[in-house]
Amino acid sequence: MDNEINGTVAPGFDWVREEFAAVVAEENGESGAQLAAFVNGEQVVDLWAGPQVTSDTLTGLLSSTKGASALVVALLLQEGWLDLDRTVADYWPEFGSSGKSAITLRQVLTNRAGVIGVDGGFTIAELADDRRIAERVVTQWPHIRPNSAQAYGGFVTFAIIGEVVRRAAGGSIQELFEERVRAPHGLDVYLGLPAALEDRYLPILPWLATPAMQAAFEANSPGPHSIPGIAYNLHAADFTPVDVLTLPNDPGVRALGQGSAGGVGSARGLAAMYAAAISGDAPLLKPDTLAAVTAIHSSDPDLVRGDRAPYAIGFEAKGLHYPFLSANAFGHTGAAGSDGFADPRSGLAYGYTRRRAAFGFRGEENDRLAAAVHRAATR
Amino acid sequence: MDNEINGTVAPGFDWVREEFAAVVAEENGESGAQLAAFVNGEQVVDLWAGPQVTSDTLTGLLSSTKGASALVVALLLQEGWLDLDRTVADYWPEFGSSGKSAITLRQVLTNRAGVIGVDGGFTIAELADDRRIAERVVTQWPHIRPNSAQAYGGFVTFAIIGEVVRRAAGGSIQELFEERVRAPHGLDVYLGLPAALEDRYLPILPWLATPAMQAAFEANSPGPHSIPGIAYNLHAADFTPVDVLTLPNDPGVRALGQGSAGGVGSARGLAAMYAAAISGDAPLLKPDTLAAVTAIHSSDPDLVRGDRAPYAIGFEAKGLHYPFLSANAFGHTGAAGSDGFADPRSGLAYGYTRRRAAFGFRGEENDRLAAAVHRAATR
Amino acid sequence: MDNEINGTVAPGFDWVREEFAAVVAEENGESGAQLAAFVNGEQVVDLWAGPQVTSDTLTGLLSSTKGASALVVALLLQEGWLDLDRTVADYWPEFGSSGKSAITLRQVLTNRAGVIGVDGGFTIAELADDRRIAERVVTQWPHIRPNSAQAYGGFVTFAIIGEVVRRAAGGSIQELFEERVRAPHGLDVYLGLPAALEDRYLPILPWLATPAMQAAFEANSPGPHSIPGIAYNLHAADFTPVDVLTLPNDPGVRALGQGSAGGVGSARGLAAMYAAAISGDAPLLKPDTLAAVTAIHSSDPDLVRGDRAPYAIGFEAKGLHYPFLSANAFGHTGAAGSDGFADPRSGLAYGYTRRRAAFGFRGEENDRLAAAVHRAATR
Repeated sequence: MDNEINGTVAPGFDWVREEFAAVVAEENGESGAQLAAFVNGEQVVDLWAGPQVTSDTLTGLLSSTKGASALVVALLLQEGWLDLDRTVADYWPEFGSSGKSAITLRQVLTNRAGVIGVDGGFTIAELADDRRIAERVVTQWPHIRPNSAQAYGGFVTFAIIGEVVRRAAGGSIQELFEERVRAPHGLDVYLGLPAALEDRYLPILPWLATPAMQAAFEANSPGPHSIPGIAYNLHAADFTPVDVLTLPNDPGVRALGQGSAGGVGSARGLAAMYAAAISGDAPLLKPDTLAAVTAIHSSDPDLVRGDRAPYAIGFEAKGLHYPFLSANAFGHTGAAGSDGFADPRSGLAYGYTRRRAAFGFRGEENDRLAAAVHRAATR
Repeated sequence: MDNEINGTVAPGFDWVREEFAAVVAEENGESGAQLAAFVNGEQVVDLWAGPQVTSDTLTGLLSSTKGASALVVALLLQEGWLDLDRTVADYWPEFGSSGKSAITLRQVLTNRAGVIGVDGGFTIAELADDRRIAERVVTQWPHIRPNSAQAYGGFVTFAIIGEVVRRAAGGSIQELFEERVRAPHGLDVYLGLPAALEDRYLPILPWLATPAMQAAFEANSPGPHSIPGIAYNLHAADFTPVDVLTLPNDPGVRALGQGSAGGVGSARGLAAMYAAAISGDAPLLKPDTLAAVTAIHSSDPDLVRGDRAPYAIGFEAKGLHYPFLSANAFGHTGAAGSDGFADPRSGLAYGYTRRRAAFGFRGEENDRLAAAVHRAATR
Repeated sequence: MDNEINGTVAPGFDWVREEFAAVVAEENGESGAQLAAFVNGEQVVDLWAGPQVTSDTLTGLLSSTKGASALVVALLLQEGWLDLDRTVADYWPEFGSSGKSAITLRQVLTNRAGVIGVDGGFTIAELADDRRIAERVVTQWPHIRPNSAQAYGGFVTFAIIGEVVRRAAGGSIQELFEERVRAPHGLDVYLGLPAALEDRYLPILPWLATPAMQAAFEANSPGPHSIPGIAYNLHAADFTPVDVLTLPNDPGVRALGQGSAGGVGSARGLAAMYAAAISGDAPLLKPDTLAAVTAIHSSDPDLVRGDRAPYAIGFEAKGLHYPFLSANAFGHTGAAGSDGFADPRSGLAYGYTRRRAAFGFRGEENDRLAAAVHRAATR
């Protein structure tokens, strides 16, 4: 394969290029990776590697999509459209059935609502559309008592919040993201990919694994009707971990851009989005909003993700994951290995994507890449 | 010893017999084990091994008793006799003293009430009788702030709930279990063993351990007045871990069948009880009741049990322990190594007992046996 | 160095002397340690070692100071001056700004308020004075959502509570400690060291580490703006882990004796203070107070301290740390390696100080020393 590293870095960021090259080389150039970073609104890293991949390539963001949706929520909170401590049922009465009447927006947005999916699972057509997900969730009992544990709402979080937004703010998360965030800043992050940009989309490729690696992964996987199984939709007919990863390869999914996993973008798009949130003359989020939405809300072991996946309001609390970042850093990973975050203290914004999914839903190279970027940005 | 395996399995369950034989052989036939399973109400496994043990042998269920008591509570919830979010003191005012006024039924039933035992400990005569346990608990301060952590209420949970049931439903858990569950389904699970069945009782035998194993166990054991020590009554005069295990060998204990650890039964009895809960033309628990009482309520590390012992309403949340089961599986282990559970998704009901206690309060063979049964049931 | 062990032990406590000697020898006598213990109010251990150190030596207690402040709080609770479930803002309205209006005294005292420090950090002059710390905290947003996780309030806990005490009880924690606890019992523990006693103060010495040990420590340390960094003030200009350890070497700090880390004392003073709390004809704390303030309140992993640091009301819950102690044991460690606690069940009171800080904020020798003392006291 082709291990060539393309793109540029600002002066002082050379070791980021070296670290990126090392990461790409370890996968023989098959990761198809993009790495971008901004400091105080100025791009300082713009790197890419792998066949067909360029700086403009768009691919599926999977759960890094949640960062875009959470940014819309933060704007609506800032403007008073939403109240985190009101119940979902206050905005959307039907949701209150089947043991869900006391669930608050804050609980949903911090993965503490106990609603992780639906018995029977979703079809891919349902998963494409937040409104259809929301309809299915109405009659579902929580699998975990609301507010008693952290359990990642893989495909449902921003379908539930999306229905609330639609009723409270008169538009969808997708429409508001386009109007308020994407278009004004010219970001390559789309919740609903326009047909005109389809030719820039490169499908996500499934992970590479030896038969022994794959067998070990499957032997250690929980059952399809387990808590993680339900959250990742593995109990649905003919749905496998590969389908989780390649969901945005379905044209219907990426056209609608559902708010939990249906977004499409590039590393530069992600990093620029986080830069717009915290940098420039008029950052999207004001200091009080930042303090409120980036405070660590949940840091228990996650019953779905297993590992430590601390959460703020709709965002992962990045400071507990990357110990070199500040306490209020926020962002979101994606199952193929992507990541994106902002660190308000250092002014750093980071974006990383992979076209080829990382084995086992990991993206551990972000530990090295983010450390290198942060070291260069704060030296 | 005698490693012979007795009993039958349904077609397709042969590997369950093989796994059971392997488990028995590892203990040289001294475990005195029974294994039973039902799928959709039909018995598919009925195996036993060890000296004197037959399919009809009854022995002490220890904390697997809690599954029977929790089933009674679920029926009373289904019928509206109890409200999980009312305080215990609402039903039983004396309980509200000494920092316990805000404790709810839900907290007691999920091991989050902070009431784990009493300073000074219980005599065996007190431990035999839920009413005497309840009397002693009244003046006790919680050792853990209510609702702040999970800590297993070893001997007290169903004494507290039993007093509430007596006041709210006009009968004891023991009476209600007999009338509503045991007699109608002809189950070999007794909360209060009738004298006429005494000849079927085989006493629990203490665990076998080399002096080195025993010394290591004791060196790693917390002190008698520690949180686990209080919960297991190890601070009571002349009370040892062996007494915890052999409690139902006391005729007074098994005659009264206290609701937390005083039950007597067989593996077939346990499995049939869980089958009755979820299977047949009129399962004991309706879908909404099942969803409400089997939702995971507490999944923190347990301050008494140490390991992960996730809890639903009165039942262990089995899906987090056995990852192959569904999210709503429910049941309860016992200290001698027994286990029993139902998985509403697959229709599986499981029961396992040991006459000879497993070393160190473990019963790890259930991991293998339950996996084998589940694999056969869902192949 | 000098490994000589000085002092005396009561009959039956010889192995405590041996264990202390072993601990001192392992550090070549450079620890500068004192060890003291009381049983039912009688001193049974009085040992010291190291250059210049005597039984009367006073040194900085760092967070073992919190035990003295928590004792004052317990007295005020006993007398009805404070209500744990009222908000801090009820007593001190300014505190309620910036997302802190719902924070209760109980949350602050159990490290669950989410307020761990201030952006920008404190100067040493500010850290010396609880009133200046309190002023700075007013405008700070919580870094962690109040009541959602445990995170140690290193330098701020008793500045916040101190302001409440000043408003509710008409005096400072320091004044109340002197009047109600120190003077009546003649204790060598000072929240504010009188000038006349300055000649008994020996400065805390920084830890000894090889360059490799130090480099490994720094490589594993979280960033200055991380949650632990903020709590330990590592983001303040020119403030390092060494400054954390040597804070009371600043004369202004020990003169004011701030309530979280500014105390000065000896091991005998600590042990005698805990003995006064639980022993004698009129122990400071009555049984109901003891039960209320020593109940375990928080046992989650601590986002600042990382390890298990279970908490009661202002005190560490020692029974979860030292498994041989009773469930209600309470006390507090200090960053240089000190510890002090009382075990109401056995009547044991313990104090240990180090003049030379233990490497890496550890004081693991307490595990051995406390076990030896407890074994001798309860044999």
